[in-house]
Amino acid sequence: MNFKLILNIAGIVLIIISPFMTLPVIVSLIYKQPDAIPLMESFLITLLSGVILFFLTKKHKKEEIRHRDAFIIVTTSWVVMAFSGALPFMLSGSIPSLTDAVFESMSGFTTTGASILTDIEVLPKGVLFWRSLTHWMGGMGIIVMSLAIMPMLGTGGMQLFKAEASEVVVEKLRPRIIDTAKSLYIVYLLFTLIGILLLWSGGMNLYDAICHCFSALATGGYSTKNLSIAYYKSAYIDYVIIFLMFVGGTNFSLHYYAFKGVFGRYIKSNEFIFYFAVTIVASLLITISIYFSEYYKSIPEAFRYALFQAVSIMTATGYVTSDFEKWPVFTQTLLVALMFLGGMVGSTAGGIKQVRILLALKQMFREFYHLIHPRAVTFVKLDGKELPKEVLGSVWGFIFLFISIWVLSTLAMTALGVDIVTSATTVVSAMSNVGPALGSAGPMENYSTIPLAGKWVLTICMLIGRLEIYTVIILFVPHFWKK
Amino acid sequence: MNFKLILNIAGIVLIIISPFMTLPVIVSLIYKQPDAIPLMESFLITLLSGVILFFLTKKHKKEEIRHRDAFIIVTTSWVVMAFSGALPFMLSGSIPSLTDAVFESMSGFTTTGASILTDIEVLPKGVLFWRSLTHWMGGMGIIVMSLAIMPMLGTGGMQLFKAEASEVVVEKLRPRIIDTAKSLYIVYLLFTLIGILLLWSGGMNLYDAICHCFSALATGGYSTKNLSIAYYKSAYIDYVIIFLMFVGGTNFSLHYYAFKGVFGRYIKSNEFIFYFAVTIVASLLITISIYFSEYYKSIPEAFRYALFQAVSIMTATGYVTSDFEKWPVFTQTLLVALMFLGGMVGSTAGGIKQVRILLALKQMFREFYHLIHPRAVTFVKLDGKELPKEVLGSVWGFIFLFISIWVLSTLAMTALGVDIVTSATTVVSAMSNVGPALGSAGPMENYSTIPLAGKWVLTICMLIGRLEIYTVIILFVPHFWKK
Repeated sequence: MNFKLILNIAGIVLIIISPFMTLPVIVSLIYKQPDAIPLMESFLITLLSGVILFFLTKKHKKEEIRHRDAFIIVTTSWVVMAFSGALPFMLSGSIPSLTDAVFESMSGFTTTGASILTDIEVLPKGVLFWRSLTHWMGGMGIIVMSLAIMPMLGTGGMQLFKAEASEVVVEKLRPRIIDTAKSLYIVYLLFTLIGILLLWSGGMNLYDAICHCFSALATGGYSTKNLSIAYYKSAYIDYVIIFLMFVGGTNFSLHYYAFKGVFGRYIKSNEFIFYFAVTIVASLLITISIYFSEYYKSIPEAFRYALFQAVSIMTATGYVTSDFEKWPVFTQTLLVALMFLGGMVGSTAGGIKQVRILLALKQMFREFYHLIHPRAVTFVKLDGKELPKEVLGSVWGFIFLFISIWVLSTLAMTALGVDIVTSATTVVSAMSNVGPALGSAGPMENYSTIPLAGKWVLTICMLIGRLEIYTVIILFVPHFWKK
Repeated sequence: MNFKLILNIAGIVLIIISPFMTLPVIVSLIYKQPDAIPLMESFLITLLSGVILFFLTKKHKKEEIRHRDAFIIVTTSWVVMAFSGALPFMLSGSIPSLTDAVFESMSGFTTTGASILTDIEVLPKGVLFWRSLTHWMGGMGIIVMSLAIMPMLGTGGMQLFKAEASEVVVEKLRPRIIDTAKSLYIVYLLFTLIGILLLWSGGMNLYDAICHCFSALATGGYSTKNLSIAYYKSAYIDYVIIFLMFVGGTNFSLHYYAFKGVFGRYIKSNEFIFYFAVTIVASLLITISIYFSEYYKSIPEAFRYALFQAVSIMTATGYVTSDFEKWPVFTQTLLVALMFLGGMVGSTAGGIKQVRILLALKQMFREFYHLIHPRAVTFVKLDGKELPKEVLGSVWGFIFLFISIWVLSTLAMTALGVDIVTSATTVVSAMSNVGPALGSAGPMENYSTIPLAGKWVLTICMLIGRLEIYTVIILFVPHFWKK
């Protein structure tokens, strides 16, 4: 392992993050908030430690990033982000406990949106802005990760669409990553602007519009209001947020083509059609369930709340407009099932991802076909192209690994004394980067009552889920560390 | 479809079942019970309807059982069994409701052991004997199904061990099936005798010894006592039952070799080693959990209860010696996780089956190896032999299908108003043919409070699980019915 290189890149990550930390300082100064100084300190500490780390490890072997090193680099980068992101919370005194601050920061960067805060609105505006900004940065980071970096590691689902070199040579690679990243950043920025304008024009003040747009587009879930989006009681704002969450849950390379005028890519993508269909079917089922249970007076009203909650949960945002724990058990169970699905590959959403479920279903039907016609030779196709068996193997492996880690982490949570519903749902919520769960971490509650060790379990689950599992878990495979 | 042939075989199934129905009549007469006449009636109705059905459909096309027909034959045979098995319950007045009687009978034949009875001990001895006998017959039936019939259909896991012809030609096949079946029946009978003797000599009366041996070896779970095995408060009986359940959860072809003196087959079977290892690890975890929660005074006592419950749940028997809903949440969750695993292929146990989980784990580690060494060519091996990719595909397909049906059936249960824990655990308990669940169908409760429609959902889940899912679900694939 090239540890110097790994630490060197961790230093670079800190240096990249630090300028973002000046934005909440500006916000704090504009609104004359008491948190400008601790936010400034956070910026300086992050920048300085980044620079020191960078220069201390400058003399690493320059040639290439070995395949194995890349896994450690990706994981350590996110851990470093989470810890530095906890500084503003701790230094401002908003979240004094290290565990809680790291939980909140990891939840932010992984675009989970699970919070340990019992009262959000008492926090100064600078810290709250930083909270939403971590979502936006995390969302941007994960798009580039999943569309540019992970495919080269052989994880992350994008290997479904293109085969890549298995050794990552830094010099060769840089132009390609930077090109891809640039195009995606532009799309992301444009949607951010559109979102802010739409929310601002709908009656939100500019500050809240920015914070909520950051959070919705990154499918995060942090709000500046205790009541989340329910605070606004506005159909217009609900639908704008639904739009932004759905956009965030879509593969950003499809958006890129749309911005270039090629809209047909959406319809040509099997995964997009599946994602769209699941959204509609789930929303309609929820509409029927909550309308006939007489929670809402009219069908359009029921549909609005159903669509919002289905999109919010499935794209792993986690915003709430209603206390779905009061909805019928069927609806609650359906929402938990949707948590597993998540959004598209190459989106800001978490979860197993739509394409993997789609391929699993296709493979399942292929098995049926095979039982009926035992001698037939069949293939599983995606977007009209035949998929190699190895790719299907990695899809199954992913789903099985996801479920295995869910079961093991749920067991860990129950071993800490948490009840079975809270354990099972908080773990999938964390792994899929959703936010709310059922039980004592329901939509109107928070994670403050989870025991300390449980918060760490969930923090790790967020990271594992965000980095598409393989990337983190491989570090725990003994063979990985063998020469 | 050759419907005449299908009905003809259903007639044969009824004719085969009917003589078994005379056994509870004898029991009833010996113990001078009031249920001899209704039991006699059940026998006559079953025999007569079998004979009538057989002769009405005698003129079917004789040549061969088409591959597709075989799926329908297997499913209808079990449905016919379940309905005829409900007769003694209904005619004796023990279970007057059709839904409840079919539930109880299906639960018996599928060796599930879930009961809608609130007081078992008030039932006459003849009916109770029939209840245990359905387990024993179902267990015998499923061994032959999974070792002889299902592999030819391409389902059931045994195709892992040998490739078979895909078209089932009756004439050619008969000798082979009958040979296999005979050897297995002898092993099954021998273990039954051993079990009865061991239980009888441990203080059980002969009647209870027979009933409990039937139930344990078939990994069913019906007891003649309201308190199940807890009634006996005997370490000896607990360990004998553990032995019988473990034997029942083992592939019977391994036992066959053992009876022929070849004991080495056990150790050479990767699945057996895995099954054994999981049993030990799970039991130890439960021991630690319940010992330190101070439910039991000594470690050996905690181990006895832990081992019993782990083996009982994992082999899908469902006997209880303690109210595990009072145990720590961790233990409960672990027991639910074990329900998914089940026993070995070719055993009387249900569930996903150990070998599939083992292969999924192997495939997962292969994925990790692949990420570390992207150019390496690797294979998944079982018992030293390389497995073809198609087999792995069918393993993944099975696991995914199992989980999908679990999720959908859980949703169906919650739509009927059942709470989430009861829904999720009763469904897996039914699909894996376990018996007890958590929530309102816990180890000390029963299924009487489940709504009517929910009982049918669970009845179907038992059948689906017992017939290794594909066999039943394929009948709902539209393509199956196309010419």
